[in-house]
Amino acid sequence: MSLVHDTSRCFAEAIGTDGLDHIAFERVLQQTAPSIDKLAAIHEKAALPLLELPTARDDLIQPAAVAERLRSSDQVLLLGTGDSSLGGQTLAALAESPFGLRPGRPKLHFLDNIDPLTFEALLRTLDLSRTGFLVVSKSGGTAETLMQFLTVLPEVERAIGRERAAERFAVITEPHSNPLRRAAEKRGIEILDHDAGIGGRYSALSLVGLLPAMIAGLDPIPIRQGAAEVLDQALQSSPRDCPPAFGAALNVALLWQKRIGTCVLMPYVDALASFGLWFRQLWAESLGKNGTGTTPIRAMGTVDQHSQLQLYLAGPGDKFYTLILMPRAGTGGRVAPESAADEAIAYLVQRSMGDLLDAEQRATLETLAANGRPVRAITIPQLDEHTIGALMMHFMLETIIAADLLGVNPFDQPAVEEGKRLARDYLAQMASGE
Amino acid sequence: MSLVHDTSRCFAEAIGTDGLDHIAFERVLQQTAPSIDKLAAIHEKAALPLLELPTARDDLIQPAAVAERLRSSDQVLLLGTGDSSLGGQTLAALAESPFGLRPGRPKLHFLDNIDPLTFEALLRTLDLSRTGFLVVSKSGGTAETLMQFLTVLPEVERAIGRERAAERFAVITEPHSNPLRRAAEKRGIEILDHDAGIGGRYSALSLVGLLPAMIAGLDPIPIRQGAAEVLDQALQSSPRDCPPAFGAALNVALLWQKRIGTCVLMPYVDALASFGLWFRQLWAESLGKNGTGTTPIRAMGTVDQHSQLQLYLAGPGDKFYTLILMPRAGTGGRVAPESAADEAIAYLVQRSMGDLLDAEQRATLETLAANGRPVRAITIPQLDEHTIGALMMHFMLETIIAADLLGVNPFDQPAVEEGKRLARDYLAQMASGE
Repeated sequence: MSLVHDTSRCFAEAIGTDGLDHIAFERVLQQTAPSIDKLAAIHEKAALPLLELPTARDDLIQPAAVAERLRSSDQVLLLGTGDSSLGGQTLAALAESPFGLRPGRPKLHFLDNIDPLTFEALLRTLDLSRTGFLVVSKSGGTAETLMQFLTVLPEVERAIGRERAAERFAVITEPHSNPLRRAAEKRGIEILDHDAGIGGRYSALSLVGLLPAMIAGLDPIPIRQGAAEVLDQALQSSPRDCPPAFGAALNVALLWQKRIGTCVLMPYVDALASFGLWFRQLWAESLGKNGTGTTPIRAMGTVDQHSQLQLYLAGPGDKFYTLILMPRAGTGGRVAPESAADEAIAYLVQRSMGDLLDAEQRATLETLAANGRPVRAITIPQLDEHTIGALMMHFMLETIIAADLLGVNPFDQPAVEEGKRLARDYLAQMASGE
Repeated sequence: MSLVHDTSRCFAEAIGTDGLDHIAFERVLQQTAPSIDKLAAIHEKAALPLLELPTARDDLIQPAAVAERLRSSDQVLLLGTGDSSLGGQTLAALAESPFGLRPGRPKLHFLDNIDPLTFEALLRTLDLSRTGFLVVSKSGGTAETLMQFLTVLPEVERAIGRERAAERFAVITEPHSNPLRRAAEKRGIEILDHDAGIGGRYSALSLVGLLPAMIAGLDPIPIRQGAAEVLDQALQSSPRDCPPAFGAALNVALLWQKRIGTCVLMPYVDALASFGLWFRQLWAESLGKNGTGTTPIRAMGTVDQHSQLQLYLAGPGDKFYTLILMPRAGTGGRVAPESAADEAIAYLVQRSMGDLLDAEQRATLETLAANGRPVRAITIPQLDEHTIGALMMHFMLETIIAADLLGVNPFDQPAVEEGKRLARDYLAQMASGE
């Protein structure tokens, strides 16, 4: 299995009275059985497109061609916000080092915001004739994405002409007629259809996440295989042997029985920084409704030990911690005896950077537990396509099952419409000079 | 004044019963008066070095020379973690666009973690002969920073020879003898002394934050002047006219009277992303002790409207929001009539990216308030050295005064020592093969 779950430090016998009581937890865990059965039945009927993605292959043909076309650029800008960007960011992070390009692959920039200063700096710096653009809005009506697209496109047209500009773009949107689709059609820009049955924050395994991954040079098949492995095991299991159900029950039991309303996801892997933000949206937007839900926080090991650990250990006991760990011993640079000829740091001699990272992650796990903080560890064998697919499917299922326990719909986000309407009103008022 | 505070939407008369009652709030606010008096007295006696930084100038002479020396590099790597890095990150973000260098200035990379994959990618990519290094550890004993330094230094020595390597480095540490200082002395690496009276998370206005800022091309004087403006106003005021005291009282009154234990800092300015992380450490590590404190979260506008706003509006009412806003109307690219000839997006025609950003930030402010969520707005006129200095001093004072209200010491972090000791033990066990 790709993911190894250690949940022992969530229980009273390991961490004292702040941990869960096994019998009370069991009652919550058993409430997940109907969710597993329901998901299995839906999967059997192929009624939820998300669950069919792990074995889909035909939908990758057009993205492969588009990825090939855009890869001729020096850099590719992804225009899109929220879940139109985070899945791709998470996957592309596996292929991109923070300090340069993978040889022969364009550098991906994910523009998920509308700060004019960022955009001005961008347009000043890039050679637009050697830049590709992927524009993603599932509804096709996202104001920020349309603003990005409609201000950048004329610049590219001015730089290289209208026809060549169209060849530098691709658009992902739903099949229904919408502003982004109509604008793309008018200009002859290639459109990739996104299945409207796959909600935004569950779209990372669709072409929304996989096309950026393919541009970055990843293979989409093992990503989906990793997801399939988790899905298959989850839907054939009792709650106790179904890691997503067990995880959902932990979160909800801690909320109900211990008033723990914050969940901290803390990977000890730099390349999972975006994964943490992807999870943060998935969890917040799926569960935060009807006055319930818990608040997700993305922390990073080891750096946030020097920022947040004081609060985590000695502040209010209102958090549940999930550490994502990866064995590192022996990897990275090693401290030579002569370079640390100082008794005070003898403990570092002959140790590698990976040794220290291993020691730190183990120490944080044990210290949280010793301070009565419920903490689980999910250990991955290595970071590759298969593992990230498995992680994504795990957390999508955990989120859906947690929503069932909390009695909320994991697939809607009704509260954000009001703000969108207000923003349009304010924009209209500027228009009329009010 | 650089900062304009609007706290009206924290009170019941604006947002309903979830807001604060004015009379009850007043009792908390008046409790801040002794804190202001105490800080004024300390400042009068020059007894807290942090408060003397805004008017200090002599301590900038050596950093100016070191910045000049390191600026001859193509890139400068800052090795250091937590507060040894976040202040510099926050300031350098003003000078660096995310897409390239300011002409004639080296690119700064802040390496605040010890992931071997990140380091391997780095060493593979960079020309070490054209790279400068700034190593920061105030105690001089931070395991992660020593590991970074002791594994990178031999690589540089191998690439360009021992003597030239030393010229590429500079070290910031406290004056007492410590492992980092001894290692630097042995190799003839220049050392800059950090005042041991200035705690790590309060060090952004010292050379720990200002040297990276100077390398990036910023002027340190207006940063300190912005801080001085806030400090002077704060210490001469009654609590009602002292924005840091008012802000501290808001946080604590919401915790005590409304059980609001999470504070969300949400800038609508990309370049303040690191500022949000700097604040997050300042607040968490200063207040999170004795079972109290509130949990800081960094969100970003507008992108997190598409990620976290559903939770913020419709999840549990356990959060206090601080939006940092900046007027943007009329800035950035503008949507031409012909590029949006579609009735469905007529609201975007002739609007600029900055117009949309203004409308969005106003809409989020009003929507949070309309949903009974306490929210304040801090508006900055523009983002420059003066403003960032003002913001930093504001939040340092707000944190110190909040600590007084909560009865905790804002300057210590006793809980994290246990984890550090454990990590060393585990490393030692690896050494002996256990």
